[in-house]
Amino acid sequence: MSVPVSDTLRDEVIAWRRWLHQHPELGFQEHETARYVEAQLRELPGLTLSRPTETSVLAVLKGGAGAGKTVLLRADMDALPIQEEAEVEFASGNPGVMHACGHDGHTAMLLGAAKILAAEREQLRGEVRFIFQHAEELPPGGAQQLVDAGVMDGVDVAVGTHLMSPIPTGVVMLRDGPTLAAPDTFDLVIQGRGGHGALPHQTTDPVVIAAQVVMAFQTVISRLRDPIDPGVVSVTKIHGGSANNVIPDTVSLGGTVRTFSEELRAKIPGQLEGILRGLCDAYGASYTFTYQRGYRSLSNDPAVTERLRGVVRDVLPEAQLTEGQPIMGGEDFSAYLTKAPGTFVLIGAGNVAKGITAPHHHPKFMVDEAALEHGVKIYVGAARALTAG
Amino acid sequence: MSVPVSDTLRDEVIAWRRWLHQHPELGFQEHETARYVEAQLRELPGLTLSRPTETSVLAVLKGGAGAGKTVLLRADMDALPIQEEAEVEFASGNPGVMHACGHDGHTAMLLGAAKILAAEREQLRGEVRFIFQHAEELPPGGAQQLVDAGVMDGVDVAVGTHLMSPIPTGVVMLRDGPTLAAPDTFDLVIQGRGGHGALPHQTTDPVVIAAQVVMAFQTVISRLRDPIDPGVVSVTKIHGGSANNVIPDTVSLGGTVRTFSEELRAKIPGQLEGILRGLCDAYGASYTFTYQRGYRSLSNDPAVTERLRGVVRDVLPEAQLTEGQPIMGGEDFSAYLTKAPGTFVLIGAGNVAKGITAPHHHPKFMVDEAALEHGVKIYVGAARALTAG
Amino acid sequence: MSVPVSDTLRDEVIAWRRWLHQHPELGFQEHETARYVEAQLRELPGLTLSRPTETSVLAVLKGGAGAGKTVLLRADMDALPIQEEAEVEFASGNPGVMHACGHDGHTAMLLGAAKILAAEREQLRGEVRFIFQHAEELPPGGAQQLVDAGVMDGVDVAVGTHLMSPIPTGVVMLRDGPTLAAPDTFDLVIQGRGGHGALPHQTTDPVVIAAQVVMAFQTVISRLRDPIDPGVVSVTKIHGGSANNVIPDTVSLGGTVRTFSEELRAKIPGQLEGILRGLCDAYGASYTFTYQRGYRSLSNDPAVTERLRGVVRDVLPEAQLTEGQPIMGGEDFSAYLTKAPGTFVLIGAGNVAKGITAPHHHPKFMVDEAALEHGVKIYVGAARALTAG
Amino acid sequence: MSVPVSDTLRDEVIAWRRWLHQHPELGFQEHETARYVEAQLRELPGLTLSRPTETSVLAVLKGGAGAGKTVLLRADMDALPIQEEAEVEFASGNPGVMHACGHDGHTAMLLGAAKILAAEREQLRGEVRFIFQHAEELPPGGAQQLVDAGVMDGVDVAVGTHLMSPIPTGVVMLRDGPTLAAPDTFDLVIQGRGGHGALPHQTTDPVVIAAQVVMAFQTVISRLRDPIDPGVVSVTKIHGGSANNVIPDTVSLGGTVRTFSEELRAKIPGQLEGILRGLCDAYGASYTFTYQRGYRSLSNDPAVTERLRGVVRDVLPEAQLTEGQPIMGGEDFSAYLTKAPGTFVLIGAGNVAKGITAPHHHPKFMVDEAALEHGVKIYVGAARALTAG
Repeated sequence: MSVPVSDTLRDEVIAWRRWLHQHPELGFQEHETARYVEAQLRELPGLTLSRPTETSVLAVLKGGAGAGKTVLLRADMDALPIQEEAEVEFASGNPGVMHACGHDGHTAMLLGAAKILAAEREQLRGEVRFIFQHAEELPPGGAQQLVDAGVMDGVDVAVGTHLMSPIPTGVVMLRDGPTLAAPDTFDLVIQGRGGHGALPHQTTDPVVIAAQVVMAFQTVISRLRDPIDPGVVSVTKIHGGSANNVIPDTVSLGGTVRTFSEELRAKIPGQLEGILRGLCDAYGASYTFTYQRGYRSLSNDPAVTERLRGVVRDVLPEAQLTEGQPIMGGEDFSAYLTKAPGTFVLIGAGNVAKGITAPHHHPKFMVDEAALEHGVKIYVGAARALTAG
Repeated sequence: MSVPVSDTLRDEVIAWRRWLHQHPELGFQEHETARYVEAQLRELPGLTLSRPTETSVLAVLKGGAGAGKTVLLRADMDALPIQEEAEVEFASGNPGVMHACGHDGHTAMLLGAAKILAAEREQLRGEVRFIFQHAEELPPGGAQQLVDAGVMDGVDVAVGTHLMSPIPTGVVMLRDGPTLAAPDTFDLVIQGRGGHGALPHQTTDPVVIAAQVVMAFQTVISRLRDPIDPGVVSVTKIHGGSANNVIPDTVSLGGTVRTFSEELRAKIPGQLEGILRGLCDAYGASYTFTYQRGYRSLSNDPAVTERLRGVVRDVLPEAQLTEGQPIMGGEDFSAYLTKAPGTFVLIGAGNVAKGITAPHHHPKFMVDEAALEHGVKIYVGAARALTAG
Repeated sequence: MSVPVSDTLRDEVIAWRRWLHQHPELGFQEHETARYVEAQLRELPGLTLSRPTETSVLAVLKGGAGAGKTVLLRADMDALPIQEEAEVEFASGNPGVMHACGHDGHTAMLLGAAKILAAEREQLRGEVRFIFQHAEELPPGGAQQLVDAGVMDGVDVAVGTHLMSPIPTGVVMLRDGPTLAAPDTFDLVIQGRGGHGALPHQTTDPVVIAAQVVMAFQTVISRLRDPIDPGVVSVTKIHGGSANNVIPDTVSLGGTVRTFSEELRAKIPGQLEGILRGLCDAYGASYTFTYQRGYRSLSNDPAVTERLRGVVRDVLPEAQLTEGQPIMGGEDFSAYLTKAPGTFVLIGAGNVAKGITAPHHHPKFMVDEAALEHGVKIYVGAARALTAG
Repeated sequence: MSVPVSDTLRDEVIAWRRWLHQHPELGFQEHETARYVEAQLRELPGLTLSRPTETSVLAVLKGGAGAGKTVLLRADMDALPIQEEAEVEFASGNPGVMHACGHDGHTAMLLGAAKILAAEREQLRGEVRFIFQHAEELPPGGAQQLVDAGVMDGVDVAVGTHLMSPIPTGVVMLRDGPTLAAPDTFDLVIQGRGGHGALPHQTTDPVVIAAQVVMAFQTVISRLRDPIDPGVVSVTKIHGGSANNVIPDTVSLGGTVRTFSEELRAKIPGQLEGILRGLCDAYGASYTFTYQRGYRSLSNDPAVTERLRGVVRDVLPEAQLTEGQPIMGGEDFSAYLTKAPGTFVLIGAGNVAKGITAPHHHPKFMVDEAALEHGVKIYVGAARALTAG
C-alpha cells in the first residue's frame, strides 16, 4: 500500500498550515479557524459537514465499497497564549497568540488526508470521520465535549497524531500502553495566624508548616507510590508574607501531579490532603485544598498500535519506528479512547539541520514542514487499513 | 524630692502632644515638628539651641549651682507610615502618617521637663542636654547620627523613656541589663533552574531547597544557640513560582533575627548562610544572602537603673515599679549607650477603663494622657538626681 | 514440539528437589549440594562435567546433529540464613539455613532437563551448557565468578528460570527489557560531637542532621530522577544515642537503592553523597559514606524472549503467558547477559488452594511441586529451539 | 560575723569527705553512708537524730537563745554509676560507683557546720535542721520523699549548696529566681509497617516519619516558645531497622526537655505529642508517647538570696560573688522550695592550677578540697543569720 501525495497537494497542505499559523486562535474561540477548515472541506466531494460544537468541524465520509469499520481521525486546531518570536513570513498576526504546539500542522495534515480519501471514497469501506477539534490546550478540553456530543457514537477505532519537534523528521513513535500522562493540578492554602516576627509564640506560623508540607509531599512519590508506576508531584508555587518583621497569616502553595495509571491517580489527592491535614493539625492551623483533575492519561491500544506500525511501514517505508518512552505531558485525545480503542501517533518534526529545535510551547517553536506529508500519509493509510476491518 | 506639675503645665503638655499628634512626620522628614519644638524651647530661659541634624533639636541647659554631671534626656519625634483610625479630634492631618508609637507624647513630656528644669536652673548643677531625636522608626535611625554629631560628647549618663500601651498607667518598668533586642533582617534568593513541572529531573528545583532551608533555620534557635541567651529567627517571607505546571527558577525568602547578646548576634548570620550554602551545594543551586544589622540591643546600666528606681519612688510615690521581661522589639536609644551608661524607662500608658488597649503600631493606637505627667516628672527627677552626681 | 515428562522422571525431579530442600547450604558453601548434583549428572550419558568454581557444577552436552548454537541453561543452588518454619517432611535439616527462595526447585528442574536432553543428544544440534550456580543470594554473587571462569565463552544465548510463589502455577511471566533491578546498598555515618542534652549549643547534634538527610534523600527519587525511569532509595536503618540526656557523637544510617537503568544507577551515589556533604557542611559535621554496588539490573533480550514465548506455547499449551511488571528485586543472572543475549523466565509456583502463599525469603516459603515439570519443559524446549539457531 | 574554722576541723572535714569518696553508694542504697553520717553526728552535743527514710539522716538542733526561725540546711549523699578514673588515694572502693558530683563534699561540709553550730547552740535562736538527703541523682529523687515525710513542716527557710568544678574556688554564685531547670524526659515509638526496602509502597515507613518528627520538634523551641522563656528539646536517641533491604516496623526516639517556667513546661508535652500525632496521622502510622516529668525547676527566693549575699560577704570576705546564669541541669532541692522560700548556693570548687577541671559526672571529676571550708562557713553563717529572723 502506498499513498502518493502529489506536488500540488503537498504545496496545498503547506499553504493551509501557513494560513492557520498566521491566524491562530485560543481554545473555544476558533471561529475563523473553523470557518476556514469548513471552507476547504466544502470543496471536497462526498463529505457531510457539521458543527458538533460552535468552533469544531466534523466531516463524515461514507465509503462506497461496502460495510466496514468506522474510523475517527482527529486533528486539534487551537493555539496558545504566547507571543510568537519565530522569524517566518507567516508568523502570527494575532498578538499574544501563537500556534506553538503544531496544531496548525495537524489540521492541515487532516485536510490533506480528507482530500485524498474523498477522492478515493468509492474504494473505501465503512466510514471515516474527520474531527477538527477545538480547545485541546484549555482544560476541560474540547475532546470530552465532542464525545458528549456523540462524535464517537458508532466509532470502532480512533487515531490521533501529534507533530513533535523533539523527535527528528522521519521518525515515528508508536508505543503500546501508557503514553501521555494525566496532568492534574492542586492548590492549597495553609491558614495560620500572623503576628510580629519577634513573637512567634503568639502566632501560628504558616511558613514552617508550608516547609514541612513541601518536604512531606516528596514522600508521596518516594515512599507511597509503587516504584514502577510513574508519577510526579511538583510544588511549583509557594507564596506567603510581605514584611521582614511580620509573620503572615497564610502561605499558599500549588503544583502539578502527573500519573499514568488511574490507580495511582486516584490515591494521590487523598495522600496529599492527608499529609496537609496531619501537619496543620500538629500546629493547630487550618487549610483549604483543591485538586483539579485534568485530562485522563492516554494509553494506546496494543492491537491498533501494531496495525498502525504496519501502516507506517507501508506508507513511509523510509521512516524509522520507535517505541519511545511515556511522556509526562497530557493530551485530551484520551477522551476519545474512553469510547473506542485507538492510538496516538507521534510524528517527528524536528530538524537540527534546519534549526528546528525549539521545544513545544516556546515562542520560537516551529515544525519541519517536510513532516506534514508524513502525517497525511499516516492518516490516509490508517483510514484505509482500519475501515477495512 | 517632689516635682510639682502645675495644672497649667499639665494642660500645656497635653496641648503640645495633641498638636504633634495632628502633625505627624516620617523619619528624616520631621521639618515642621522640629520647628515646632524649637519654637517652644525658644520661650524658655537659659537654653542653648542647635540643630545637630536637619530635623533634630538639641537644647543645652547649664546649671547655675556649680560643677556636676552632664545628663542627656532623650525624646524621639518621628511618626509611622500608618493611616490613623483612632477617633479623636486631634487625629492625624497627614494622610497615611500617624503617631502610632507615642513619640508625640515623648516629645511633649520632654518639653514639659525642659520648662520645669529651665525655671530651676540656678539650683541645678552640671548640665542637662535635651535631645529631640529624629527617625527612631527608620533604620539606620537618628540616634547614631546624633552620636556621630557629638551630642554624647562629655555626657555622663543618658536617660530615655517610652510610653507603653501594654503597661497600665501608673506602672513604670525599669530593668537591669538586656531590655530591648537587636532587630536584624535577612533576605536571600535560592537560584535554581526552572522548567516543566512534569520533568523535575531537568530542573534544579528551588522550592524543595527553600523548604529545607526554612526547617534548617529552625535549628539555629533550637540547637546552635545557648538556651539561656534569647534569640529569634523568623522566616516571614517566601515567594516562588507563578504557574501550576512550571517549576520556578528562584525562591526568595526573608525574615528577622532578634538577639540581646552581641555574642549570639555575631554568630547567627554565618550560621544562616552556612546552612543555606550547604543546602544549595547539595543540589547544585546558588544563592544570594544579605544580612542587615538593625539597631544594637539595649542594655540598661544596673547602677543608673537603681538610681532611677529611687527617682521614681520619689517623684511618683503612688507608681508601681516592675522589673518586667526583656522585649524582643528594638530601639535606637542603644546607640547613646555605646558612649555612656544610661537607662531606658518604660512608662505605663495603657488604660483598659478608657479603652486604651490598642498595641503599638496599630491604626487605633492611643496613649493615656494621664501618663504624660509621669514622664515629665521622671525626666525632671532624673535630671536633678543624676546631674548631682 | 512437545516435551513428554514420564511419571518416573516427574517423581525423580520431586525427589531431587526434596533432598536438596532437606540439605540446604549457604552461598559459597554448597559443597554437599554440588557433590549431589554431580552424582546425578554422572548417571547421564554424553555429559562432560567440571567444577568452574569450588561449589558450582558445569555439564556440557554436545549435540550429535551438526552445527548449531551454544545455549547456557542456568539453575542456582544456594540457600538462605533463615530458620525454616514450613511443616513438611523434608524440612531443612540444617538449623538456621533454608531453601526459602526455590533454588532447590531450580536445580531439580535443570537436572530433569539434563536427563531428557542427554537422552536425545543425537537429535540435538550445537551445544547445551547446564550451569549449576553457587551463591546467587550472596553478593558479589556466583554468576560473575562463573563468567570470569569462562562458562559464557562461546555461548550464544543464556536462559535462566525462577519459581515464583506470588505467581500462580500455570502462569509464566516473560517480559521484554528491564525485569529485575540492580540492588545496591549504602551505609553512612554522620560524625557530630556529642554532649549534654541540655546544652545543644556545645555539641554538633548529628540527630538533626540525620533527620534532614533522610528527608533530603527523598528528593533523589522525587526530584532528581527521570519520572519514567524507576528507582527506589530506602533508608532502612537509623541508629544513634543511648541516653535521654546525652546528645550522641554519631548517627548511622543505611539503606538500599534499586534501579533498572545504568544511567540512573550511576547518578544516585553522587547525589546521595552530595546531599550528605551539603548538610554536614552546613553544621560543621563530617561523615563517612560507602556505596556498595550489587548485581546489575537484568534486562531480557526481546528477540530471545519472543522465541521463548513460542517455546512456552509449544511445551505448555495450557499455560498462561504474562508480560508482568518489572520487579524491584535483583538477580545475578544479569552477569551472564553481559556476555550474550538471553532471558530470565519467571515460572508461577504459588497455589492458594494448596496454601502455598508465603512470600520468598519467608520462613514458611514453599513452592508448588506441580510447577517443577513446567520448568523442566521450558528448559528442554528452550534448549531444543535455541540450539537450532 | 566570722566563722573561724580550726585546723583540726578543716582536717576533719577533709577526712570525712575522703572516707565518703572511698565508699560511694547509689541513690536509695546509702546504707553505709547514712550509718557513717549518723555516727559522726552522734558525737555532737544537742542534736536529735532520726531517719526520715531508710537511708537519710535528720539532725535537729534547738537553739538556746530563745525564739527564732527554723532553718533547714541540706546536703545530698548519693553517688553515681560511674567507674572512677581519678587517680587519688581515696578513690572509690566500690567498682562502677563514684562520687562524681561532689555529694561527698556536701555531706562533709554539713557535718562540719553541724559541729560548729552544735558547739555554739546556746547562742543560737530558733532551730536548725541538718538534712542528709539520699538519692538526689535518681528520679523521683529523695527530696520529695523527705518533704512528704515532714522534714519541711515548720521550716521557715531552706538552704542547699553545691560544689561546682566549672566555677573557680573562691567564687560563690548566688542568683535570684530561676537557677536550675526542670529536667524532663520523653520516649516515643513510631509504629509503621515494615517490609521490603524495594517496595516502600507496601509499607508504612517509620523512618521518614521519624525524620519529620525530629525536625518538627525543633519548632517547639524555635516557634512555639516565648523567646525569653528558656527551654530545650533534644532528641538524643533514634533507633530503627537492622538490615539494608528491610524497612523496619518501628523507629524509637527519646530525649530530654529542659525548662524553667512551669508555664512552658506544662505546654511542651502536648505540643510534642500533637506534632507526633499529626505526622503519624498523615501517614496512617500509630505511636506511643510517654513524658516523664523530672524534678521541678529551682528558683531562688530573692530576699533569702540577698541575705545570703550578705552572709557570704561576712564569712568569706575574700570570696567573689557572681550572679551567674541559669543552668539547664536539674536539682531536687526544688522540692523543699515548694514548702518554704530558700536559696541554693553554688560554691566554686574548680582549680585549673591543681588540674581540677573535669566536668561533673566525668570519671575524673574532682573537687578542690579548699572549697570545703567555704561550704562549712556558708552553712554556719546562713544558719546563724536566718534563725535570727
